[in-house]
Amino acid sequence: MSSAKKGGPVRPSTSVWRPLGVDEIRITGGLWGKMQRLNADTILQHCESWMERIGWIGNFDRAAADMITGRHAGIEFVDSEVYKLLEAMAWELGRAPSDILASRYQMLVERVAAAQEPDGYLHTSFGRAGQPPRYSSLEAGHELYCFGHLLQAAVARLRTGHDDVLPRVARRLADHVYRQFGPDGRVGVCGHPEIEMALVELARATGEERYLELARLFIDRRGAGTLGTHPFGQEYFQDDIPVRLAATMRGHAVRALYLAAGALDVATETGDGELAAAVRRQWANGVGHRTYITGGVGSHHQDEAFGDDFELPADRAYAETCAGIASVMLSWRLLLSTGEDRYADLIERTLLNNVLASPRADGRAFYYTNTLHQRTPGQVPDEQQLSHRAESGLRAPWFEVSCCPTNVARTLASVSLYFATASDDGVQLHQYGDYRISTELAAGRLIVQVSGAYPAGDTVTVNIVEAPAAEITLRLRVPAWAFGAAKVSEGPTAQTSSHVEIRRVFRAGDSVRVMFPAAARATHPDPRIDSARGAFAVEQGPLVLALESTDLPPGWSVNEVTADPHSLAADDAGATTIEVCRRDPAPGEWPYYAEPDEKEGERVRVRLIPYHQWANRGPATMRTWLPVSTHRPLRSAAADIGHEPGGPNL
Amino acid sequence: MSSAKKGGPVRPSTSVWRPLGVDEIRITGGLWGKMQRLNADTILQHCESWMERIGWIGNFDRAAADMITGRHAGIEFVDSEVYKLLEAMAWELGRAPSDILASRYQMLVERVAAAQEPDGYLHTSFGRAGQPPRYSSLEAGHELYCFGHLLQAAVARLRTGHDDVLPRVARRLADHVYRQFGPDGRVGVCGHPEIEMALVELARATGEERYLELARLFIDRRGAGTLGTHPFGQEYFQDDIPVRLAATMRGHAVRALYLAAGALDVATETGDGELAAAVRRQWANGVGHRTYITGGVGSHHQDEAFGDDFELPADRAYAETCAGIASVMLSWRLLLSTGEDRYADLIERTLLNNVLASPRADGRAFYYTNTLHQRTPGQVPDEQQLSHRAESGLRAPWFEVSCCPTNVARTLASVSLYFATASDDGVQLHQYGDYRISTELAAGRLIVQVSGAYPAGDTVTVNIVEAPAAEITLRLRVPAWAFGAAKVSEGPTAQTSSHVEIRRVFRAGDSVRVMFPAAARATHPDPRIDSARGAFAVEQGPLVLALESTDLPPGWSVNEVTADPHSLAADDAGATTIEVCRRDPAPGEWPYYAEPDEKEGERVRVRLIPYHQWANRGPATMRTWLPVSTHRPLRSAAADIGHEPGGPNL
Repeated sequence: MSSAKKGGPVRPSTSVWRPLGVDEIRITGGLWGKMQRLNADTILQHCESWMERIGWIGNFDRAAADMITGRHAGIEFVDSEVYKLLEAMAWELGRAPSDILASRYQMLVERVAAAQEPDGYLHTSFGRAGQPPRYSSLEAGHELYCFGHLLQAAVARLRTGHDDVLPRVARRLADHVYRQFGPDGRVGVCGHPEIEMALVELARATGEERYLELARLFIDRRGAGTLGTHPFGQEYFQDDIPVRLAATMRGHAVRALYLAAGALDVATETGDGELAAAVRRQWANGVGHRTYITGGVGSHHQDEAFGDDFELPADRAYAETCAGIASVMLSWRLLLSTGEDRYADLIERTLLNNVLASPRADGRAFYYTNTLHQRTPGQVPDEQQLSHRAESGLRAPWFEVSCCPTNVARTLASVSLYFATASDDGVQLHQYGDYRISTELAAGRLIVQVSGAYPAGDTVTVNIVEAPAAEITLRLRVPAWAFGAAKVSEGPTAQTSSHVEIRRVFRAGDSVRVMFPAAARATHPDPRIDSARGAFAVEQGPLVLALESTDLPPGWSVNEVTADPHSLAADDAGATTIEVCRRDPAPGEWPYYAEPDEKEGERVRVRLIPYHQWANRGPATMRTWLPVSTHRPLRSAAADIGHEPGGPNL
Repeated sequence: MSSAKKGGPVRPSTSVWRPLGVDEIRITGGLWGKMQRLNADTILQHCESWMERIGWIGNFDRAAADMITGRHAGIEFVDSEVYKLLEAMAWELGRAPSDILASRYQMLVERVAAAQEPDGYLHTSFGRAGQPPRYSSLEAGHELYCFGHLLQAAVARLRTGHDDVLPRVARRLADHVYRQFGPDGRVGVCGHPEIEMALVELARATGEERYLELARLFIDRRGAGTLGTHPFGQEYFQDDIPVRLAATMRGHAVRALYLAAGALDVATETGDGELAAAVRRQWANGVGHRTYITGGVGSHHQDEAFGDDFELPADRAYAETCAGIASVMLSWRLLLSTGEDRYADLIERTLLNNVLASPRADGRAFYYTNTLHQRTPGQVPDEQQLSHRAESGLRAPWFEVSCCPTNVARTLASVSLYFATASDDGVQLHQYGDYRISTELAAGRLIVQVSGAYPAGDTVTVNIVEAPAAEITLRLRVPAWAFGAAKVSEGPTAQTSSHVEIRRVFRAGDSVRVMFPAAARATHPDPRIDSARGAFAVEQGPLVLALESTDLPPGWSVNEVTADPHSLAADDAGATTIEVCRRDPAPGEWPYYAEPDEKEGERVRVRLIPYHQWANRGPATMRTWLPVSTHRPLRSAAADIGHEPGGPNL
């Protein structure tokens, strides 16, 4: 069928650049190659076996047999986890076909499909005798949210070249929702946005305009108190202000970002410039005022929500993994829509420092939230127990609300699709790593191999494997963190602070190299971020670094150290080190004093690690924001790394 | 009856000092006189009429008529609010008898008493056909918690000289609980501690030893996973570690403090030194590491809980009014038990800066939580609507969980009873204000009148109205905030950094004056309090001051100012002022920079107000921790107030 055109998760009818499909871009190694292998070898199986064991997959069997009432496992929206796993499997099968995985996938799809009711409705928690009626709790029931994930899983199947069982299930389900909530249906929306972007994508993938029409209705209805009240206020589910009028990101972070992604999709397909501008404004205000240095968002545990501007506590950072993924999904849509590099900058930051922090190195445990300051060592979780808590102590194998592991799985399986785009006469490299592009330009096939040790190394090499005989443009993003200091192996034909373009006739064997500053650098918070005042972070390339107590002398805690931002250096092994002082605070009865307590004691040079790697060496305390030492270091290490105080902070 | 001996809320069988009863100490004016009038004239009526209107009082009528099933108003523990109101009324009647109030009180007691079941059980949410069974949810049902508040209300009635209806109801109820949970009963405890201290006090007031025995069982059973699991972990309701082994305050703050108070009561009556030491240790660690400068406690909105050590975010301070009240209740017990002034210091701080911040100036709205930094102006609440949210925006008239207004009411009605104590040969003044003590010492009657503009003024005068002909000791606390700099009008016969004693024969007309430092002072946070790093607070006498945007030039927000701690001064009207700078932060796309952003712009001198008065002039932003200006002030105002940088910070 023509609808089964290959592609990525997002394929707008108009965009500045054309996204690539699974047959056009492939990760070949490096950090992301390792992560995709971990996903294929471990994470997918981990998710499937957990959901099998605790009955979330079995819900579909019981529903199909009409034996689900009173025997539903898990909270009411666990269907969505099965759908995200199906999406992950579909992308993985598109990336690296496997008979074993294909068979597991098809068996799982059949079990889901068997639970679909004759009118297209498909949910294991609602609608049967003894269950809550269909759509009886749009605020909290997550029915349409679950449907959205099924539609996205179906789109992944279509975009990897298969118009088979799940896409058919999805069409029947979407048709049902259209009848229920379409122009002649009930004026409702889901408490948790998700179906909006899924409907637009299904419309794009199938050509069915009604799905887009329904998504537009869901966007337009929202923000007028369409949903009932919520204890955390209407902004919790973005029903306080219409999407097109809202100034910034607010309320539950995943809800806010999924909604914005869906709104932009609707705006793109309907030519609604006002709506698109509203989404860009919300993104800019959210990123400028409500985002952690890791790219994580969500400042509150209570409501998993954005806080006020500059309310960004390190120790109570929620920074939910799913919110980071949602942020990447939104930024990717904005990048396609505008071509602006800042969206790729945030994708890079968020993928490497928020999303990648979630899975444990062995792929068998995950962070739900991603704190920036762990004050007490976490407790080793029971690997056989569901975790109640969305707390960051140590990563846990599975959660009662387990949205993050399956979201990580689908993101890792499809992550290459966020790395580059094409146009008629060239390619645009937005992310770096080890990957291969093979795509048809107007003048013919272009094959390039991108490589380097990124994010660790300082040089990215683009080798031309095959190129058309005509002039084409190779466009390379210059990350914002490089402060314009990237060097290119040949003079660009166009250049801004955020990208370079090389336009010429390329030949097989040609290569272009880009060199980025490699030294670690100190980064200072906006003075309105009260929680980070008097502290600095360390970044290196695109990575946020962290101090983990594992690297401190025995008995030290990260809670009692200060550090000198001018003492950053590399040790003999190339690891970044910094000089930290141990405070010797008064053992006071009362922690407020007539004079500032600035005493500092013993000093030691320690290693910093990439933030996303923390808590892989057992229970530990950790911090990203290091309090600035008030003392001069014993020796300045600035010379070691060529740091010039006061100069550009590279 | 002999059991109807007058006294205060706590009357240990042994204590360093003897607490005074309502007939021995009476507030005569000043701030606390104003607050007690507000309570009598407005707050009691406000609580009663809200609970009448929304059916919480009517629950008892419907229960008595066996018509409550399906018609219960409010959440399952609203009975406790009626009991706290009854306690407040009882103390108020003891303080200032009133026929009108007595009649309202008796009518309300009759309605409560009518709902008591033949076996003594009394709860409007449990146990009838169609309701959850009795004790079916010890974790969350709050049954014993409600009973505890009824017992405390009965004790207030006994201690104000009346052994009438409510004390009889309380005895029957306590006897029922003893049968259910006593040595031969069910091994359970309540998810929310409260009944423990209530049982001990009822034992003290009635002489019934079984109530003490039951309280001891509840204390001893707790901490071994006696309750089921909780999503926030067992520490949420202190069932993680036995009370006698716990090192610090943790979990839900009100639960933790009520439990500690009950544990100390049990320890006192059973001579359990280990248990008493455990409570003192938890108090010391909680105060030293987990308490806001206002005395407020609770760093999390999500679980209303203590955070980790030094996790004290200003902008997300929960600092629940009820936790402040619970802290006062615990500190008072520790003060009686040990005689140590530090407990009175914390009572002073907490009453003036946390508890008093709750009621609006007109007594018709309350803060549930007491933030130390309000970033956005609150919304004016609908005065006729229940408030869902425990957020600090503006004070709200009533809450779905409305524990704080009635807790404020009972505290204000009885607050004088925390001000002073007596011994055989003297009195101990722990708090200052305007009040009169009239008590019998071994040598005869002593009547003293304490007066002054405290907490605003700098001089407290103690006038002797009547004294025995023998030597007695007048013991005056020297608040910790005075750093030992209090001056006394005559040479003390004994003196420490925390109190002075004057022992002599006093005659009517004698007076003793104490002068405290009156100037405002800067206070600096422990360096481990990340959220306050680089900032200072301003205190004046026992009051924490705040900067409210109402006092800033139009268009300024507290979020963008810095201040110079050396610029504190008094203006012509005697108000404390400080020089603040308006930052001119970069309107960046990303709030993290290569260099610190320390630009400061326009400078202006503004007034500070007592923190507890904030948000009485309409929506505003507010902060207690002021970021330290990096610039020198235009002129030093240090000379104005005799401040010597580096010297003791008075």
